[in-house]
Amino acid sequence: MKERFVIIGGNAAGLSAASKARRENPNLEIVVLEKSTWASYGACGLPYYLKGDVKDLEDLVAISPEVFRKERNIDLRLNHEVIKIEPENKTITINTSSGKTSLAYHKLLISTGAKAVKPRIEGINLPGVFSLRNMDDAQKIKHYLTEYSPKSVLIIGGGYLGMEMAEAFHSLGMTVHIIELLPHLLNSFCSEIAEVVEQHIKNYANLHLGKLVRNVQINKINNINNGQLLVQFAAEQDKTGENLVTDLILVATGIAPEVSLAQEAGIKLGKTGAIATDGYGKTSIPDIYAAGDCAEVKHIVTGKPVYIPLALSANRNGRAVGSTIGGKATPLAPVAGTAVVKVFQLEVATTGITSLEVARKHGFDPLKITIASSSRAGYYPGAKPIKISLLADSFGGRLLGASMVGEEGVAKRINIIATALLAGFTVEELENLDLAYAPPFSPVWDPVLTAAKVLTNKLITW
Amino acid sequence: MKERFVIIGGNAAGLSAASKARRENPNLEIVVLEKSTWASYGACGLPYYLKGDVKDLEDLVAISPEVFRKERNIDLRLNHEVIKIEPENKTITINTSSGKTSLAYHKLLISTGAKAVKPRIEGINLPGVFSLRNMDDAQKIKHYLTEYSPKSVLIIGGGYLGMEMAEAFHSLGMTVHIIELLPHLLNSFCSEIAEVVEQHIKNYANLHLGKLVRNVQINKINNINNGQLLVQFAAEQDKTGENLVTDLILVATGIAPEVSLAQEAGIKLGKTGAIATDGYGKTSIPDIYAAGDCAEVKHIVTGKPVYIPLALSANRNGRAVGSTIGGKATPLAPVAGTAVVKVFQLEVATTGITSLEVARKHGFDPLKITIASSSRAGYYPGAKPIKISLLADSFGGRLLGASMVGEEGVAKRINIIATALLAGFTVEELENLDLAYAPPFSPVWDPVLTAAKVLTNKLITW
Repeated sequence: MKERFVIIGGNAAGLSAASKARRENPNLEIVVLEKSTWASYGACGLPYYLKGDVKDLEDLVAISPEVFRKERNIDLRLNHEVIKIEPENKTITINTSSGKTSLAYHKLLISTGAKAVKPRIEGINLPGVFSLRNMDDAQKIKHYLTEYSPKSVLIIGGGYLGMEMAEAFHSLGMTVHIIELLPHLLNSFCSEIAEVVEQHIKNYANLHLGKLVRNVQINKINNINNGQLLVQFAAEQDKTGENLVTDLILVATGIAPEVSLAQEAGIKLGKTGAIATDGYGKTSIPDIYAAGDCAEVKHIVTGKPVYIPLALSANRNGRAVGSTIGGKATPLAPVAGTAVVKVFQLEVATTGITSLEVARKHGFDPLKITIASSSRAGYYPGAKPIKISLLADSFGGRLLGASMVGEEGVAKRINIIATALLAGFTVEELENLDLAYAPPFSPVWDPVLTAAKVLTNKLITW
Repeated sequence: MKERFVIIGGNAAGLSAASKARRENPNLEIVVLEKSTWASYGACGLPYYLKGDVKDLEDLVAISPEVFRKERNIDLRLNHEVIKIEPENKTITINTSSGKTSLAYHKLLISTGAKAVKPRIEGINLPGVFSLRNMDDAQKIKHYLTEYSPKSVLIIGGGYLGMEMAEAFHSLGMTVHIIELLPHLLNSFCSEIAEVVEQHIKNYANLHLGKLVRNVQINKINNINNGQLLVQFAAEQDKTGENLVTDLILVATGIAPEVSLAQEAGIKLGKTGAIATDGYGKTSIPDIYAAGDCAEVKHIVTGKPVYIPLALSANRNGRAVGSTIGGKATPLAPVAGTAVVKVFQLEVATTGITSLEVARKHGFDPLKITIASSSRAGYYPGAKPIKISLLADSFGGRLLGASMVGEEGVAKRINIIATALLAGFTVEELENLDLAYAPPFSPVWDPVLTAAKVLTNKLITW
């Protein structure tokens, strides 16, 4: 019998693993089990589907199931839900439309991804309240938008998804409210950067920062349900709150790793609640690997396990596991948490450690500066402001992370910092970078270099 | 007597040195001697002044002479031309409007910059033939444009300046011809990238590649000078050539370091013809430093002296010398030659070693790949093609350089490679970068990562 590599989950990590394992080893039997009807799609594109920038859900599918099956010889099975892993006899149990079945594996990859987290609030499962994590979710929201033409939306949660969906709903002509429990939007960014986003987004949406939703009810006028929702929300410490009537609610309060299968099989979870793995994606049980949004990754600055579910590392770490199982041992890459989000006209980006508190928790003595600069030479038409926050350890000057915001030149500029983090650069080394300059694209001293100069000076006088 | 720091040349390197020396040492006497009437201006903005994007020449002045004098206590003297350096008695001779004078120095910085190179061609000094290196040059061209409304231009040289001026002249409604002796435009870029530029620029200008100008004459019709120029040009090996009648000629065949003062003083030049310095900008004569477009720099990949005159390293190395003379020894940064140029709708960028031939000359066994990718997620509207050429040493996989071209996301993307070069990354390390991803800004695998993957695979099978 051929060696069989079984993969649970047919998306970023799972299918990257399958494809890479096939390339490394033409003789492996590769089976991918996907519980939904969709595989290999760009979930990050869902907001743009709902906005209307992407016409069909199918457009988000990167590679069709037929290509996996015919061109890559990968046995991709849709609507196959794995309900049990039995490591002792290396078998899994699968629910299919035609009943239960079991399958033996030599190597197993758990790439079950993550699920949307819903806060425990009365009424959170009422009709008109949605999450957006997968293609089915997107279809449901699209259907609701088409069927009921809602005029208003409340987005619960001011993270990436909340920002992207605020833009999507606004562009559909809806009145947008955003509630965020924390004092700032985009919690993983420096507050100085988040404040710029907040000022900007106020032009398009109503912000309720430091507020939480107490409950959701069907809004009844004269005891008649008019299809609207009545939301009570308040600051955490407040006894009484405010009311908001809305046609639609999007819960965007974050995601959690989908680990129930792993947990039941006795696989060790890390402190973060995601599946713990070694440097090659191996779990605590032999021959079982985990990668993608269900697994921990190693942080580029601290070297410690973290839960940072992002598309690139899911793809890359899945690919590394596939390579290892295919015969070429490939370590996972560390993760900086580099991310960018488009918020209306703004590009907002972050990488590494951007919070003094988090840096201190990891034993650093961090210093942070924030500078304002320009996206182009000052005299060149169309120059836009850019703001950068930069963090370093005052002991030795090691660069820890950065956030930035601006109308142009931010999405790519953050990658300078991400690259410097992998190199373990000090701020002085960052200052020495030979970056590209031409008047249409940056000042002579790129904003990143200006930030580095300012932080270096502060480190010296500290 | 106070220690006196004398600086020859009041631009990028010279004034960066003056400002930084002042910040480090409030007691230093700092004298800057600038032969022209302009100081502290952004020469890279000159094409955009001529194009009309920048309204006044004065807009290109970063910091006014008054600020240097009053706020920074820097004795900046315009129209002061240094004509001699006498190292034996540490004195310089200066030509001013009121005659010759001399000045003693304790420390001297030569930041005389570079001059435009004109090929030795008959007629190259005729009226209507211009160079563009400084503010006076720009004024002369502007005057000519205003006075004579030329309808056509021949640009000799297909480098950065030639490209920028092609855009400027075209936007003024002129017919543009470009002659380049080499087989490709943008010689310091990979030919695969240059070809994309050539295809693009053909929509706006007439290209004559592999051709040189034999001579320039006043064009006479019926023996009457009508203000036009008659240009004879041909391929190098050809006996007979073609004729072109044009209203204006811009010579953009490159620049050479302005080293005559240094040479006469007995200061050692490097093989490149620019002033040789040590790691702190010191020349071969004690207490004399050199920085900016007149001096060599250390290449980031080879560690050897090169002549790469670019604005950022002039500013940075001037600043380093100022810091050293101000009391805080600061080494110069190595230079990758990172550059970007806007060519009509294209962004074209380069860094490091991009020629197999050059790489081989430095003892590498280079491999190069070129990939085509996209500036955004494939399904996101407005995605534009990006092309990247990437070079690495097949022995060990060290990254050597890259060129790229595209309509968006190139000017900043090149900085990832520039950062990786300073880190001394291998291609595999480049592949492991945690870069920012969101559909409006890149595919999940950024084009840089795709290029790294393809090159890694080629290195393995090589």
